[in-house]
Amino acid sequence: MEYAVKTKIELEQEYKSVKAHFEECKQKNLKLNMARGKPAKKQLDAVSGILNTVITPEDCIVDGVDTRNYGELTGLKCAKEYWADILDCKPSQIFVGGTSSLNFMFDVISRAFSHGLLHSERPWCKEEVVKFLCPSPGYDRHFTVTQFFGAELVVVPMTADGPDMDVVEELVKDPAVKGIWCVPKYSNPDGIIYSNETIQRFANLKPAAPDFAIMWDNAYCIHEFDGEYVPFPDIISMCEAAGNPDMVYEFASTSKITLAGGGFSAMATSEANIAYFTKLFTAQMISQDKVNQLRHVKYLKDKATTIEIMKLHAEIMGPKFRVVSEILDREIKPLGFANWVNPKGGYFVSFNTMPGTAKRALALCKEAGVEMTPAGATYPYGKDPQDSNIRIAPSLPPVEELEQAMDVFCTCIKLAALEKLLEK
Amino acid sequence: MEYAVKTKIELEQEYKSVKAHFEECKQKNLKLNMARGKPAKKQLDAVSGILNTVITPEDCIVDGVDTRNYGELTGLKCAKEYWADILDCKPSQIFVGGTSSLNFMFDVISRAFSHGLLHSERPWCKEEVVKFLCPSPGYDRHFTVTQFFGAELVVVPMTADGPDMDVVEELVKDPAVKGIWCVPKYSNPDGIIYSNETIQRFANLKPAAPDFAIMWDNAYCIHEFDGEYVPFPDIISMCEAAGNPDMVYEFASTSKITLAGGGFSAMATSEANIAYFTKLFTAQMISQDKVNQLRHVKYLKDKATTIEIMKLHAEIMGPKFRVVSEILDREIKPLGFANWVNPKGGYFVSFNTMPGTAKRALALCKEAGVEMTPAGATYPYGKDPQDSNIRIAPSLPPVEELEQAMDVFCTCIKLAALEKLLEK
Repeated sequence: MEYAVKTKIELEQEYKSVKAHFEECKQKNLKLNMARGKPAKKQLDAVSGILNTVITPEDCIVDGVDTRNYGELTGLKCAKEYWADILDCKPSQIFVGGTSSLNFMFDVISRAFSHGLLHSERPWCKEEVVKFLCPSPGYDRHFTVTQFFGAELVVVPMTADGPDMDVVEELVKDPAVKGIWCVPKYSNPDGIIYSNETIQRFANLKPAAPDFAIMWDNAYCIHEFDGEYVPFPDIISMCEAAGNPDMVYEFASTSKITLAGGGFSAMATSEANIAYFTKLFTAQMISQDKVNQLRHVKYLKDKATTIEIMKLHAEIMGPKFRVVSEILDREIKPLGFANWVNPKGGYFVSFNTMPGTAKRALALCKEAGVEMTPAGATYPYGKDPQDSNIRIAPSLPPVEELEQAMDVFCTCIKLAALEKLLEK
Repeated sequence: MEYAVKTKIELEQEYKSVKAHFEECKQKNLKLNMARGKPAKKQLDAVSGILNTVITPEDCIVDGVDTRNYGELTGLKCAKEYWADILDCKPSQIFVGGTSSLNFMFDVISRAFSHGLLHSERPWCKEEVVKFLCPSPGYDRHFTVTQFFGAELVVVPMTADGPDMDVVEELVKDPAVKGIWCVPKYSNPDGIIYSNETIQRFANLKPAAPDFAIMWDNAYCIHEFDGEYVPFPDIISMCEAAGNPDMVYEFASTSKITLAGGGFSAMATSEANIAYFTKLFTAQMISQDKVNQLRHVKYLKDKATTIEIMKLHAEIMGPKFRVVSEILDREIKPLGFANWVNPKGGYFVSFNTMPGTAKRALALCKEAGVEMTPAGATYPYGKDPQDSNIRIAPSLPPVEELEQAMDVFCTCIKLAALEKLLEK
């Protein structure tokens, strides 16, 4: 029965019962973690064959390049071809990166501030104010990068089709608005796939800033755990067709395809942007880890093979997301005060609890030994104006632990809501 | 006979003979390279056993950490212990990096400009002028990093004991002078080991800038190719003893120990600096490639084992440097207009030809198919005021090719000198 229609006496009874269960949970001295989108050990084991692909000197040579030596700043030819296949763009539009795509995004924003992007009138650090659009709920580490350089973060609401494009189109009329963070497929944390119309409206944007940057973090481009691979449009060619060829910087990595602690990343963008960043990065490094690039190309081969490998992850991830969905459906849905979407890919479930109770619920989780992403983290400056959104990351714990963790989670969600309703 | 005591007629004869040999060289259509400090294929083959050290899921676990997953921003415990052993400092003073130590140095300077160092009064980008000391001849890529961020590069002369410390001690009285680039062992390109007195004077510096940074690039810390490993003092503890605990940032990498295209790097600095940079880097990345860290620790083990492995490189490098030394001694020494030092480690021979002829000599080399580091590259802004210094990098070509390349080089050095003397 929904809490909204319960009498005060019924709520008090419910509170007593939930509170008792909470105390039981605490007695168990659990130490569980649903905080970060970390792959589980089983997933890492499933793809550790990659470690066997480059083990002799002969293995290291490709297309006449000795991957063990210096050189090839923008990446191996075969690595560019691999990423072009995955992202549906051209190899000439790929700059291959190191282990961390976050680091690559950071470097692009860092260079925008220190030197400017291709069409900047001046480095962003010389602007009086730089504003950056943050569709929220979103990824805290994105927001942190622009905050780190002093940008003013502007919340854009999320819809079921992606960021609210009416709001985006309005905000980009301000020349101080220099860019936007996007996770276009299985968005972090909502798990939404941006609609084709949303993507087209992105490509068609007419921002006042000539150097407006769409930071298109395609982190989950191929990360279905429920059902078949969902094709996704190439925003680079769409931007080009719309007369905005240099507006988008797309990122991806194998952190959740092969090894989070030893993958490799790529930036996809216009050839003009590649040329500009090649010049900038020449001051920064001689080359990335090309042996690891080759290791990946030999193991993952191409998009078709990678999609098959992603099914190994899906076999492990799928049951975990079903546990979350089943427990939430059973424990929370009937109470009528929370909502969430069950995604078919990505790493998160975005859970909206009773406004004003998210922080409290997660404090209770912590008390009972379950660590979650801090409430508010999905909003700029860590401040969720509704104090409602919670990011659930079910990938790391094994199913048995996940069931325990979700039991604690639901108990704390209920308890925080009841405390609020009863003004305790 | 020295050119200086030859008559004009004798010089004209010599010119004719050298010019004829130069034309012969050109006929050979050579394509040789002595431009960059790249390891040779034989060296890479000798250490490719590293590729076999981490190949199963079990191999990936160390000290309870699964290297395949996210985390451990500052590096694996065993990787810190490894670098502390190599550099003679404490593991708590190590921040483990990615493939490129140049990238790590770049990041430190980049953060100094965007956010400031630990003792900065403001970010360097907010200073009216930032000056950076560049002992010259030195490493072009160092100079480029500080130039990239708009610092004014100030030449410091090199002596046989390292940078001229009288000059350094005078220059650091200017609060706009924010730091200095150093390659303290087998300096690039001179191959000099800084004397203990020089190092002590570095540690004792009393710069006007509270955030003065010694960028101590110990790139060749263990890179002897002639004779035994030469112990080297730990500047971090010396700075601490001198009351300057946070003044030095030391860097090293395995690019020339294992694989240039797949090694790993480290920064060594005070614990306070480590804490400060941990905070800054948290905005930038989740972790470096830990699988590769472990691969290295398993293969290189410790300093003693690494010194043994460096002997494999010495066996290949030693004969090449002897070829350079023998040919220069035979062809150039008797002519009396050039000087150089034969180093016992590192990757370069620093050659000083007749002032005003280095650029011309290298243009002639190019004409005859031998690529060299551009003349002037060893000075800030690529401008050698004497037009005299040339960096010879003999590591890449096999001995037979090196002999050919050195023949061309000596011919071009002579030809350029003769052109000058004869005003051709």
